Parts: sequence; structure tokens; C-alpha cells
Amino acid sequence: MREFAWIEKLAGLFGRQAAGAPVGIGDDCAVLDGAAPTLVSIDTVVEGVHFDRGIMSPADIGWRALAVALSDLAACGADPRRSIQALVSLQWPPDWNDDAMAELAAGLRDCASAHGCAIVGGDTVSTPGPLALTLTVIGGAARPVLRRGARVGDAVVVTGPLGASGVGLAALRAGLADDDARACGAAYRRPRAQLADGARLAALASAMIDISDGLLQDLGHLCEASGVGADVDLDLAPIDEATRGAAAKLGLDPVAVAAGAGDDYQLLATVAPRDLAELRRTLPHATVIGATRPGAGVAATRAGRPYEPPQRGYEHGT
Amino acid sequence: MREFAWIEKLAGLFGRQAAGAPVGIGDDCAVLDGAAPTLVSIDTVVEGVHFDRGIMSPADIGWRALAVALSDLAACGADPRRSIQALVSLQWPPDWNDDAMAELAAGLRDCASAHGCAIVGGDTVSTPGPLALTLTVIGGAARPVLRRGARVGDAVVVTGPLGASGVGLAALRAGLADDDARACGAAYRRPRAQLADGARLAALASAMIDISDGLLQDLGHLCEASGVGADVDLDLAPIDEATRGAAAKLGLDPVAVAAGAGDDYQLLATVAPRDLAELRRTLPHATVIGATRPGAGVAATRAGRPYEPPQRGYEHGT
Repeated sequence: MREFAWIEKLAGLFGRQAAGAPVGIGDDCAVLDGAAPTLVSIDTVVEGVHFDRGIMSPADIGWRALAVALSDLAACGADPRRSIQALVSLQWPPDWNDDAMAELAAGLRDCASAHGCAIVGGDTVSTPGPLALTLTVIGGAARPVLRRGARVGDAVVVTGPLGASGVGLAALRAGLADDDARACGAAYRRPRAQLADGARLAALASAMIDISDGLLQDLGHLCEASGVGADVDLDLAPIDEATRGAAAKLGLDPVAVAAGAGDDYQLLATVAPRDLAELRRTLPHATVIGATRPGAGVAATRAGRPYEPPQRGYEHGT
Repeated sequence: MREFAWIEKLAGLFGRQAAGAPVGIGDDCAVLDGAAPTLVSIDTVVEGVHFDRGIMSPADIGWRALAVALSDLAACGADPRRSIQALVSLQWPPDWNDDAMAELAAGLRDCASAHGCAIVGGDTVSTPGPLALTLTVIGGAARPVLRRGARVGDAVVVTGPLGASGVGLAALRAGLADDDARACGAAYRRPRAQLADGARLAALASAMIDISDGLLQDLGHLCEASGVGADVDLDLAPIDEATRGAAAKLGLDPVAVAAGAGDDYQLLATVAPRDLAELRRTLPHATVIGATRPGAGVAATRAGRPYEPPQRGYEHGT
């Protein structure tokens, strides 16, 4: 069975909403009752599945694992002025030495500092298998924004450039190391969770998700949860110059990468038309790339024609 | 480097206490600030390290992983009347099929129900390595009880029988299946977190820990955190008839198993002498097995003579 089918099955088994948890399984975070809603999310990364030690330093691995988890808090509109905490569970393989562990821990610490997050607990276990890290992150929001909530006619908005991480991964694998490639490689190795943008969008967005698996796939999740469809004009997708430059050298189509490669950890939100003026004021760097419509599914166009990228995103078990 | 050395090192690196977390790394749970203190703990189990599919069904694996995590909440005195929530991250290996996943999930669900816990979120990823589960559990306590806090002259108390799980593991490995062995095997495969006892002890205990690694080793952790030593009379350690019976058939010394095998998930607490009468009233099944003293370290006796079991507990990386 594939990942998303399993999430559905488990949500059914465990109950989609539970006592003390106004939002349960299936969104970026679970929302727990309290004086103010508490957001909590868990994320595991495994060597050989999510990262490759050949192109990531131990510090990169630590940084990225935490940033990816924090991105789920951003996607729910966590307020960076409230405490943000993380717990880390490390599974270390037989060939993992103390220096590498110390570097990995330094990467975790640096990422935590950069995001105003405190690492408050954890667990370390040995494994005969690959290196793996599980991060649990906890934050708070006055008004959590979920995947559900988009209405027909809302604008589809992204918070920043797409494709840099996907092109960066290809550049790292190819050993391309000019300025453009290095910038893209850094986007892949050291992503940032968009906590500040997420908090600003929390006041405006009808629904939100982070772009982890791929733009079209993640928009599909948001649309499915909201019961709407969406049309996206990929010519509007923001792609920076370094990404275009490195993609050209690698023979990649940057728009295809932006549409399907994932790992950008920008936020994808839907915003009602009446709130677009306020969006432009508070998030001038946000870009409208499409709109929701009745029905289901996500349709993409380029130059006014239907377009299907080679992949829409990543799913485990496929 | 070994597990406990790493925990020390990571605690130093990440900061032992952080903003919004009155208790940080190194106790059974992290304690987060809020209207009432929030307890949170993370625990990973890995096939081939923490469990063996040869003697555990997938449902057992799921049950045990969650119970072990919930035991950390019990050890901090979590109040079962408050919400208790869990998030689960599953790493599934290539040979793991849908039936096994469904059984494992059912074991998680049954354990959650048995403990009044709601599973509110999670993550599933594929791995080329062994099956692994990470559980994050969240609870609340009016007054969290920590490993630190024991004073010289406190009684050392355990909440229930010891050694059943260690003997049960040996019985499962040996294929012994009479009534005694089955009872011990169930203690190993389906432990229970002592949430009710932990909540009662929260009003009385000066310090508390759960017995996961081994009685003497876990008491050592409590003593070290509290800056005291302790003497334990192992003749007083509660060991039930089934454990003695199965141990005899296996040629095991049940007292040695009770002292060092761990996995019992009973609670180990220190209680001031003035509170012992109240302890006997509210926890009549609790047993005093020793007392704290000045200095450091844990000394055990049997029949009045110093005794050192073959092992004091389990540590990863040793």
C-alpha cells in the first residue's frame, strides 16, 4: 500500500478527531486543545530515502531534518512569538562515529537557533539499519490554518521561489559547483521553514500547506481536503535566476522542476479575493499562481495550454 | 560513544533548559510551560534492537511501542484525567506487507484505548532498513515529578512486581509456553504504563522514574539526578509466582532478572518518611525496597550481603 492510502487507513483506525484534539490525523499538524491551540507534528527522515550522505554533511542532515519538521508548523500558521520546541530521536547506524554525531547535532542546534526553536528533549537508539532522525515539533497559533477551508474562487498563492531545491539536488548529484549551482544546493541542503510568512498568512489564508512533496501534489492535498479543484498557470510560478541558470547547465526544465520536485518548503495558501489587497500589503513577495474552482483535481497550464509535468510530487511506497 | 554519554553531550549542546521549557533534556519527559505544565516525550523502537518479529506479533510491536512511551508520562506523574495524546512515525521496511501494517496499527489503537490515549497524528516513511516506530506522547500534570528531588533518608518504592518481563523474554526465546511462561510473555509483549499509580505518586513522591532499562540502573539515574546514593535490599523486591515458576524452569535467578533485566515499566519513586503512611493508604500494592543515603551510587544486598547482578540494565551502544 502507498503512503497516502496508509494515512487514510490509519486515520480511520485511530479516529480522525480525538478528545482534546480539534484537528487530528491528516493535516500538517495535529491541533491540541489548550488555553491557545497547540500545534504538534512529527517527521522522520531516513538515509537512502530522504537524504544521501554523499551530498549532505552530517550538519546538513541535522539542519534539514529540523527545518522540514518546522515547515509543518509554518504551514499551520504557528506564531513565532510563542515558544517553538522540538524533540529529536536519533537512530544511529554501526558506521556512524562520534565526530559525525557531533556535527549532526551542531546542524540541529544551528537550525533551531535560526528558527527561534528550543530543542527540549529526545532519544538516541542504535540501529542495524540506516541513519534516521525523527523530529517532533510543538508550537502555538491563535488561529491554526488547515488544509481544509479553501472556497471556490480563492486565489492560489505561493510565498517564494520554487524549483531551487530540486535543481540543487540535481546539481549536487552531478557535481556542478558554480555560483548558481551552489545557491541551489544550499536551498536543498539548508531549507528554511517560512514561519514568519506562515504567521502573516494565518490572518488571511482560507487554507494552507507547505510545499514538501511537490507543488501540484501538495495543492492536490489542499484541494482534496477543501473539496475544491484548482487551476494553476505555471508561467506565473516564481523561479529565481540561479535556478534557471543551474537548470540550463543541467539540461533541466526549471518549470517542470518547480511543478513537481518538491523540497522547496515555501508555503502554498488559498486567499479569498477580498483579502488580496491586504495580502499584497503584508506579503509583497507572495505570488498568485492560480485559483480554485468547483470540482476536484489540479490542472496546470503553460503558455495557455494544458501541461502535465513528468512528476507531480513524491510519495513513499510508490 | 555510548547512549548516556551522548545524552549528556547533546544536553550541553542544545541547552539543558530552554525558554518555555522548565525541564529540558535528560528526564523522562520534557516539561513545557502553559496554563498547566505539559509533558512530552519521544521514544523510538527498532527491529533487531528493541524487538524481534520472531517472538512478537505486529500487534504486539505496536502495543509495546506506545506503552513504553506512555510509561515516560506515568514516570512524570501525568494526570490520566487530562488529555493524553500520541503521534506515531512508522518506518516500514521492504518486506513489511499491508496485513502486518494493519495488525501493527490495531495494536497501537488497542494500547491507546487501554490507556485512555488518543492518536492524533503521525508520519509514515519507507526505509531500506529495519522496521522502526517513533512515538511522541503528550500529557499534563498539575505537578510534574522528575528524576531529581530525592532527599537523603527517603524510602525507595516500586509500584508492582519486577522480573516478569525479563523472564517472559527468555521464555519466548526458549519457546517455553506453560501458564507461567505465557503470563510472563504477556508482560513482555503487552506492558502497561502505570498512569494511575504515577498520578497517585505525583502527590507523594520526591522523585520518580520508570523501570525501563533495569531496576538498579534506573535507580542510579534517579540518584545521580538527585545527588544522593541508595541502598536496596533485593530480598524485598516484589516478584510474582508466575515469574518465579517460569524462571525456575528456565534455570534463571528471578532476583537477578528483577534487578537488571528492565522492561517491567513499573514505577520507581522516592518518598519521604513522613509520607509513607499516606503511601500505604493510597498505594497499598507499592513496596519499599530500600532507602536513599548521602553519597552516590546504588548498592544492592541479598540476605544481608552485598550483591551485584550479572547486569544492572541496558544501554545502547555498549
